[in-house]
Amino acid sequence: MMQIHPVILCGGSGTRLWPVSRKAVPKPFLPLVGDETLFEQAVRRVAGDDRFAPPMVVAGADHADLIMAQLGDTPGARLVVEPCARNTAPAIALAACLLPEDAVMLVCPSDHHIADRDAFLAAALAAAALARENYLVSFGIAADRPETGYGYLQRGAPLAGGYAIRRFVEKPDLARATEYLASGDYSWNGGIFAFRAGHLLAELAAYRPDMARLVAEAVKGGITDGARFHPASEPFAAIVGASIDYAVMENTARAAMVPADMGWSDIGSWAAIAEALEGAADASGNLARGKGAVDFAQCKDVLALTDGPRVSAVGLEGVCIIVQDGEVLVTTREAAQLVGKLPGALVQ
Amino acid sequence: MMQIHPVILCGGSGTRLWPVSRKAVPKPFLPLVGDETLFEQAVRRVAGDDRFAPPMVVAGADHADLIMAQLGDTPGARLVVEPCARNTAPAIALAACLLPEDAVMLVCPSDHHIADRDAFLAAALAAAALARENYLVSFGIAADRPETGYGYLQRGAPLAGGYAIRRFVEKPDLARATEYLASGDYSWNGGIFAFRAGHLLAELAAYRPDMARLVAEAVKGGITDGARFHPASEPFAAIVGASIDYAVMENTARAAMVPADMGWSDIGSWAAIAEALEGAADASGNLARGKGAVDFAQCKDVLALTDGPRVSAVGLEGVCIIVQDGEVLVTTREAAQLVGKLPGALVQ
Repeated sequence: MMQIHPVILCGGSGTRLWPVSRKAVPKPFLPLVGDETLFEQAVRRVAGDDRFAPPMVVAGADHADLIMAQLGDTPGARLVVEPCARNTAPAIALAACLLPEDAVMLVCPSDHHIADRDAFLAAALAAAALARENYLVSFGIAADRPETGYGYLQRGAPLAGGYAIRRFVEKPDLARATEYLASGDYSWNGGIFAFRAGHLLAELAAYRPDMARLVAEAVKGGITDGARFHPASEPFAAIVGASIDYAVMENTARAAMVPADMGWSDIGSWAAIAEALEGAADASGNLARGKGAVDFAQCKDVLALTDGPRVSAVGLEGVCIIVQDGEVLVTTREAAQLVGKLPGALVQ
Repeated sequence: MMQIHPVILCGGSGTRLWPVSRKAVPKPFLPLVGDETLFEQAVRRVAGDDRFAPPMVVAGADHADLIMAQLGDTPGARLVVEPCARNTAPAIALAACLLPEDAVMLVCPSDHHIADRDAFLAAALAAAALARENYLVSFGIAADRPETGYGYLQRGAPLAGGYAIRRFVEKPDLARATEYLASGDYSWNGGIFAFRAGHLLAELAAYRPDMARLVAEAVKGGITDGARFHPASEPFAAIVGASIDYAVMENTARAAMVPADMGWSDIGSWAAIAEALEGAADASGNLARGKGAVDFAQCKDVLALTDGPRVSAVGLEGVCIIVQDGEVLVTTREAAQLVGKLPGALVQ
């Protein structure tokens, strides 16, 4: 049986989860939902299952030690340390260069939450099967609201376990998103991909020859240090960064998608965390997390997280209260997207 | 000209203003509205005006030093230190015993806010004139909402500058309070009084002879220590406490009231503070107070007070955020009455 090679990407700053998510310890490395961090969940999701090879993690140098610590004793895990941030296409290409040409890669962001692991595994196996047929496969996340913050995938002709992708749509306005949701023809583009390593590199070479060449040079000139691999920084820094969607997926004639209804959340705001934690809330929808005491009086759907100071919440509905490192954030779920623009989040 | 003798009562714990108001430094001694404390405002309100004698303050021993400090160099100020708390009637009677029989006392709580000093002074002069005619006078605060948390006074026959009191009403239910407000016949009982000292003591002796006797004994056996007077604790402790309303005002045939529309607030909750501070708020009704930074994003009518940690408020309306001494309180204005029942407020 050919194993699937998980490639876990660690990027993104997650300023909308300030004051808990910070530059030094961003979103993937925090236990935001459950006791494990999102990164640990991403690793665990494909661990202990012999259909999957050990994970390859791609991340910046700033978080390398954090990653090694959180990988713990994951057998065979490798870490590719990006010399600098160049978006997802170069990161994925680095991993592809380090894998056998025929290896099926399963590219997973490390800052998403997936509630239903079985549904994820089923989609991963379907995606891998299509990848072996030389499709470049994207997970199509079941949309349950007219979200304007994500890209959408429109389904085309049916394939085994999935569909061809008819069209990629950038973040739509609300009218269009509502239309997409009603049509049943569109899914969210969740940033989870499967492809054969050699096939991905061949397609990249077709659409972004400079990028493909510079990634290959960076790997050729790289240094292995135990479980860590350090690509050469000069060629990598010379890359003009681009997302894998923009560099490859939107250009290829072999784009496919597998539908995935798996309790996915990008944990993009405190509202998303509150939603992902709903199962743990009390009968009024209130939830206390963290080390400090929390008292609720006549509250509904309030999330309170504190690293020490007691939080007392009175008469609130749909509010998140986050107390961390001497910062106090109080936000409605509705406006939680604005947190990333706060002075505190920007100057951290 | 006969001067009016201000008697300033310092009682009440103010747990509904937790976590700022605490047992050690309760509500009257905090700069909750403006730069001065409510106590300092009460003293200042009758200072520098030769129609008023120096103030006499009545308070418990716990706050004696705080009071002396906040009195500063108020000339001639005296402090009567209650041996124990026995409600307002004994406290007022102590002051009455220490004043000349003919002195007109103006009894003022120290935990209220009065925005319009001129209106207060006009009402005080009218009340003093009625007191000289041997009326026991209560300020009738202009009611502007069907408040169920206060007692009400119903007007009777007109007198010079006021009215006889037809009836005292304990805290009514909402239906009744709404009726009172609509009738225009009722005012709030604000706990501000004027009477001749000798007259008050005579009436007290009629309705509460034991209390009157024990207060007289406590004063007779008391000790003067500079500006402080310490009544004898044994007789004072033997008093069965009662409010001045219950012990005297509701019994006398000489109860009168002066109407007072003076921007009065009992600062009974964080909502009341937010209202009293409305003039200082920004165009969206938001107001930041305290030492720490505060950032508002899409907020309306939010009060944030912090003793250090930055507060970031997002998308909120009509909310008070109070950060003090390692406690974080977030309450709607509507539910702010519940603050006093919080675990934090009770166990402080």
